[in-house]
Amino acid sequence: MAKQFDVVVIGAGPGGYIAAIRAAQLGFSVACIDAAATADGKPAPGGTCTNVGCIPSKALLQSSEHYEQAQHHFAEHGIEVKGVSLKLDTLIGRKDSVVKQNNEGILYLFKKNKVTFFHGTGAFAGQAEGGWAIKVSGKTEDELVGKHIIVATGSSPRALPGLPFDETQVLSNDGALRIPAVPKKLGVIGAGVIGLELGSVWRRLGAEVTVLEAMPDFLAVADQQVAKEALKALTKQGLKISTGVKIGEVKTTAKAVNISYTDAAGSEQKLAVDKLIVSIGRVPHVEGLGAETVGLKLDERGFIAVDGDCKTNLPNVWAVGDVVRGPMLAHKAEEEGVAVAERIAGQHGHVNFDTIPSVIYTSPEISWVGKNEQQLKAEGREYKAGSFPFLANGRARALGDTTGFVKILADAKTDEVLGVHIIGPQASELIAEAVTIMEFRGAAEDIARICHAHPTLSEAVKEAALAVDKRTLNF
Amino acid sequence: MAKQFDVVVIGAGPGGYIAAIRAAQLGFSVACIDAAATADGKPAPGGTCTNVGCIPSKALLQSSEHYEQAQHHFAEHGIEVKGVSLKLDTLIGRKDSVVKQNNEGILYLFKKNKVTFFHGTGAFAGQAEGGWAIKVSGKTEDELVGKHIIVATGSSPRALPGLPFDETQVLSNDGALRIPAVPKKLGVIGAGVIGLELGSVWRRLGAEVTVLEAMPDFLAVADQQVAKEALKALTKQGLKISTGVKIGEVKTTAKAVNISYTDAAGSEQKLAVDKLIVSIGRVPHVEGLGAETVGLKLDERGFIAVDGDCKTNLPNVWAVGDVVRGPMLAHKAEEEGVAVAERIAGQHGHVNFDTIPSVIYTSPEISWVGKNEQQLKAEGREYKAGSFPFLANGRARALGDTTGFVKILADAKTDEVLGVHIIGPQASELIAEAVTIMEFRGAAEDIARICHAHPTLSEAVKEAALAVDKRTLNF
Repeated sequence: MAKQFDVVVIGAGPGGYIAAIRAAQLGFSVACIDAAATADGKPAPGGTCTNVGCIPSKALLQSSEHYEQAQHHFAEHGIEVKGVSLKLDTLIGRKDSVVKQNNEGILYLFKKNKVTFFHGTGAFAGQAEGGWAIKVSGKTEDELVGKHIIVATGSSPRALPGLPFDETQVLSNDGALRIPAVPKKLGVIGAGVIGLELGSVWRRLGAEVTVLEAMPDFLAVADQQVAKEALKALTKQGLKISTGVKIGEVKTTAKAVNISYTDAAGSEQKLAVDKLIVSIGRVPHVEGLGAETVGLKLDERGFIAVDGDCKTNLPNVWAVGDVVRGPMLAHKAEEEGVAVAERIAGQHGHVNFDTIPSVIYTSPEISWVGKNEQQLKAEGREYKAGSFPFLANGRARALGDTTGFVKILADAKTDEVLGVHIIGPQASELIAEAVTIMEFRGAAEDIARICHAHPTLSEAVKEAALAVDKRTLNF
Repeated sequence: MAKQFDVVVIGAGPGGYIAAIRAAQLGFSVACIDAAATADGKPAPGGTCTNVGCIPSKALLQSSEHYEQAQHHFAEHGIEVKGVSLKLDTLIGRKDSVVKQNNEGILYLFKKNKVTFFHGTGAFAGQAEGGWAIKVSGKTEDELVGKHIIVATGSSPRALPGLPFDETQVLSNDGALRIPAVPKKLGVIGAGVIGLELGSVWRRLGAEVTVLEAMPDFLAVADQQVAKEALKALTKQGLKISTGVKIGEVKTTAKAVNISYTDAAGSEQKLAVDKLIVSIGRVPHVEGLGAETVGLKLDERGFIAVDGDCKTNLPNVWAVGDVVRGPMLAHKAEEEGVAVAERIAGQHGHVNFDTIPSVIYTSPEISWVGKNEQQLKAEGREYKAGSFPFLANGRARALGDTTGFVKILADAKTDEVLGVHIIGPQASELIAEAVTIMEFRGAAEDIARICHAHPTLSEAVKEAALAVDKRTLNF
């Protein structure tokens, strides 16, 4: 007989596992289904984020940053090291153990919160007495019935047409996290978050990295002043970045990947690399979900169609995270997961899509929240801008890391903060204050009047707010 | 003839130089007087903070942290280094150059803002037509008249009775920043911010460090749960910390400093060290100010007596920063400096003494704002507490730095955040969000509902807020 639950969550990525835990906290009986497995076949909940995304990339970024510091920056600190060498398997192994900690952490949280975990693929089998029938197949076979279903199946890397990922020569984010030896030449197609982060990792570890981007502007999603600073910094570090290219034929041989492309000037170019990372976006993952079995509606781009509250076209079926519209970000998925669980409980789940921060973990880090300058211009909104460079920040000088700046955009009349854009040390952490200010619809003047500890990088946020009123104190 | 200014600021530390710049921005003619000099006799504005405090200590903490990482943590990242050695003069030289950048930065800011700088000691000479006569002596000799005077003369390290600082064996914060060779044994009397930060620097660089503290509780100013975690972490790193001691005779010989003390159990102890840092607090610096010449009132502890607006007993004479009541913190001095300049201009200068953050830059870092648990208990205030450990934070795991936690205290009825206490990676930066929430008198629920970027350390702040309502998602 089918096992009955109040809520069945399909997928244990950040959207799914968080939705499951929140629903269980609210008193529901909850199942969560996820097929991901470790090399030895054990459950690996956490989704792309934990297994082949946010977490392992940050582990590699940290290790490779230490390697970079040891090779190029220790001398200025008076630290002499003789012969810095890399044991790549240890570095990758550390990353794997960080991932494993997170996998196990989620399984522990399921137990603690009394969420029943099923290791397999969840698919709609039809309607059933008391809800929707969900079939679990794969590692475990089971039949569940859920009164409410939350689909959180995430996304998959988009391949270049005619060039499937083999994860040996042609790598998605997955293969790019476990290259067994540092490649001499590494190609990256797509200068988005994944391409830049993983390109940075392997550049630091010794690869010669070439990044090809189809868009004419570098980091078109970011404020263009930030994007320019990023391009300058990353280029200085040794990444070769070309924008406005048109990728032609890509051929793999036993030894190399050969890429033909047309550069921005219209000239034909050839690039031969040992490995190629393809990071040209991600597509919603609905394969095997049985959407067609129950008539679950997808939109024209293949996402599960939902309204602002994550309701699908089917009663009591919800969808959250990468598989629905909006930015493909773990924290956006989490917010949606919490909100849906609360809506099921009759509460008013809250997601503010206007204050979801974005982060790129390159060095310097990049983060932003709200509107950028090109967006405000396009909207015809009158605004004031204020910037402050980390070069004039005492903590940044003490750290020896002064690249970048904080930029604040505020309404010309009300002074309300409309966007905050940061490139520089700890940008990922500094953005939290900016999100908080925007949630309270605070003004630049509010930030300027708030005491910031000295010496901290966050003083640059305060100074940028002062700059909006043309009264910086330290620049 | 005396030079006439609207505002004369005595002292170019964080309180003074910021007050001078803000006053100039507001349209006043401003002079700033400071006697500090570099080794070659040039002006060294910036006060204790820039020259022998916040800035140089952070430079040494950063360099020594790299050394620590290279020696003890690189192996787990797969980075092998053969023979790590220290060139202490380069390390100290880098610190000196960071300080120099800051000195020069302030002189540049004075020029840019048209503040006239006088290199010497400023002292009240009496009343004069149009204000107060101020005599400059030392490097330059001059006579100024200021309609308004802002005293920002800062503080000096307190010596042990009968044991003056020689900066060779018996060190204040000044000498402790420039020990020419790593001492084998280093003693520290006073486990406050300076003692712990500089003790940590020299411990990382190889000294055997013993810290003696008179108070029975370690870090009595901090939340005691944080203090306990700090004691555990610092002890594990190798600092030998004894609290509740009574310092007896301290004698210097050519080779050593010999300290007799009674330990907490009442036993007589002896400690012989190569160098001794005495960091038992600081005293307001009013020497040579001529306070008595004009009848400027001091309080019973030697601070310049001021009201909540930094007004002294004399008309148009103000005082800010370490030389007045309140925490001896650079950012508190800055806030007061800005506020006084604005008050002189007839504006409503704003300093919220309830939201001034504190930071200790040990590893793990420690920061807090608002009330701690022992204070709330003493007040009889009903509160809820929520904590979240960095051990359960994905970014902390990826960084390999999971010591510590975030703790939020909120009003039992209104949920208003009353205090935030952080020990862990980047605590110095994470506190900015907490200060912002408290300035808006936000609730723990507000933090819990605000989207925090993943994976960041700031998610631990969100989770601690969730913990206040007993609904953490990741713990």
